[in-house]
Amino acid sequence: MNEIKIFSPATVANVACGFDVLGFCLDSVGDDMVIRKTAKKGIHIANIEGFDLPYEAELNVAGVSALAMYEAIDVDFGFEIEIYKNIKPGSGIGSSAASAVGSVFGMNELLGKPFNKTELTAFAIEGEALASKCEHADNLAPALFGGFTLVKSLSPLKILEIPTPNDLYATIVHPQIEIKTSESRALLPKEVPLSDAITQWANLGSLVHALHTNDYELIGNSLNDVIVEPYRSQLIPYFNEVKQAALKANALGVGISGSGPSIFTLCKGSETANKIKQAIQDVYSKTGIDFEIHVTKINTEGVKIIE
Amino acid sequence: MNEIKIFSPATVANVACGFDVLGFCLDSVGDDMVIRKTAKKGIHIANIEGFDLPYEAELNVAGVSALAMYEAIDVDFGFEIEIYKNIKPGSGIGSSAASAVGSVFGMNELLGKPFNKTELTAFAIEGEALASKCEHADNLAPALFGGFTLVKSLSPLKILEIPTPNDLYATIVHPQIEIKTSESRALLPKEVPLSDAITQWANLGSLVHALHTNDYELIGNSLNDVIVEPYRSQLIPYFNEVKQAALKANALGVGISGSGPSIFTLCKGSETANKIKQAIQDVYSKTGIDFEIHVTKINTEGVKIIE
Repeated sequence: MNEIKIFSPATVANVACGFDVLGFCLDSVGDDMVIRKTAKKGIHIANIEGFDLPYEAELNVAGVSALAMYEAIDVDFGFEIEIYKNIKPGSGIGSSAASAVGSVFGMNELLGKPFNKTELTAFAIEGEALASKCEHADNLAPALFGGFTLVKSLSPLKILEIPTPNDLYATIVHPQIEIKTSESRALLPKEVPLSDAITQWANLGSLVHALHTNDYELIGNSLNDVIVEPYRSQLIPYFNEVKQAALKANALGVGISGSGPSIFTLCKGSETANKIKQAIQDVYSKTGIDFEIHVTKINTEGVKIIE
Repeated sequence: MNEIKIFSPATVANVACGFDVLGFCLDSVGDDMVIRKTAKKGIHIANIEGFDLPYEAELNVAGVSALAMYEAIDVDFGFEIEIYKNIKPGSGIGSSAASAVGSVFGMNELLGKPFNKTELTAFAIEGEALASKCEHADNLAPALFGGFTLVKSLSPLKILEIPTPNDLYATIVHPQIEIKTSESRALLPKEVPLSDAITQWANLGSLVHALHTNDYELIGNSLNDVIVEPYRSQLIPYFNEVKQAALKANALGVGISGSGPSIFTLCKGSETANKIKQAIQDVYSKTGIDFEIHVTKINTEGVKIIE
């Protein structure tokens, strides 16, 4: 096998009470990528469609993660990468993570899978760091493993696969505004009340238990973020209106996807997911803000070969 | 049935990363209590052995929780309570919780179980509040439900039963010193670094997952408390020495039980639990401090009828 086409999915990180550790994988939103062995050594970006991104491998997220893996292997050939990008950079649903994951996943397949998924995550972290200026794996882990993942620690890198209830759907709205990462970060307090921290970890423990026990009601009761959302939601226009409308339409919970501006909602069943879509459309269509909405099952497979 | 004898177990609360929410139940340490229907209405403490505690029901933890339940029922008889206390008050392994739980569990049995365990916890909270001057359920819940429990929230009261791996044992040392609750509380910071809070909830999420998946190694890797232990361990002489000795003897993790002074360790198997006991004895026997050590399986049943 000298060439492979893959689907690298969008993901939601910072899942409410699981800020900085919990993410999940989307099914119908993601990038396509082609990875190809070449006689020429090194990593080369051969084509990028969809968005304007750098072709220099060392300046491209997919290129940097590919280079990280390439340095760890000893081969007399190279790799060429084509990126067909559907996930808008800056949308808050893991655009850079999809790129970072796609290249290393594809290369690993062409090499006969010498690396496990945790090792692939470690390579992808280097690509992701180019985009986000810091090392984190909360979008990478769900893109690689699928389903819900908890990044227990970065050093050593320890990723846990949390079970995903069968009928769990996400409706995600992306208001087409730009939030500067620096601004989003600056909003976060360095210290938080101990009482709020306790509430947050009670909710996260509860959410992990709920995912293990298929308890949709408890998933809903646990999806609260008392630490970050009060700050960051200020940057997302009509966040509270969307949240209220989605909850009224039977969303189990609502939160900021990544560092925004996308807002995720979770619910039971595709019918409810589509009702939530309608409810969110009703809110945003009155505001003059352009927006996109995705309705998707939780993707338990993660990045995958499509050809 | 007019009389019942019960065993009300000791418990460990504040389980490392699960400060204020996670507890577990002990098997071989606990109080015996006799609850008896009486023609005379009201709640009466008929006998207390083991420790010097008040006989006035409204000043006694078991009495106050019993009164809370008694006010919620309409009967033409009363209850008499005998308390055979083995758990030393102030030891940090849920002495008051055992009393608070025992009376309401026993009365509920004699009444034909009109209340579920969460409702019993709510009554017991009132008794526990007499001892600890605040409402909390982190010792009550494991005493009533057995195993590991996560108190997701107090209002509404929501208690989750987390699975307990079969071969999980605890070794607990009680150095016979007094820690004033007020001093122990005053040590806690009102605010904590967000980065530490994230580490704590990553560990708690991971611990809940590890308990669900019988992953002893991950239980060990998750049993870290970066928030409270650095403060409160200062009040417990030789805490760090005990911790190191226990870990060296293959403890999965070590932490402060409740607000101390007891120290709990968890491990796989009774043989290791006894080795840990020896290792802790070796530390404390050189210090001149009196101490007691308990080795116990995790009790998955909780409070129970013995006669």
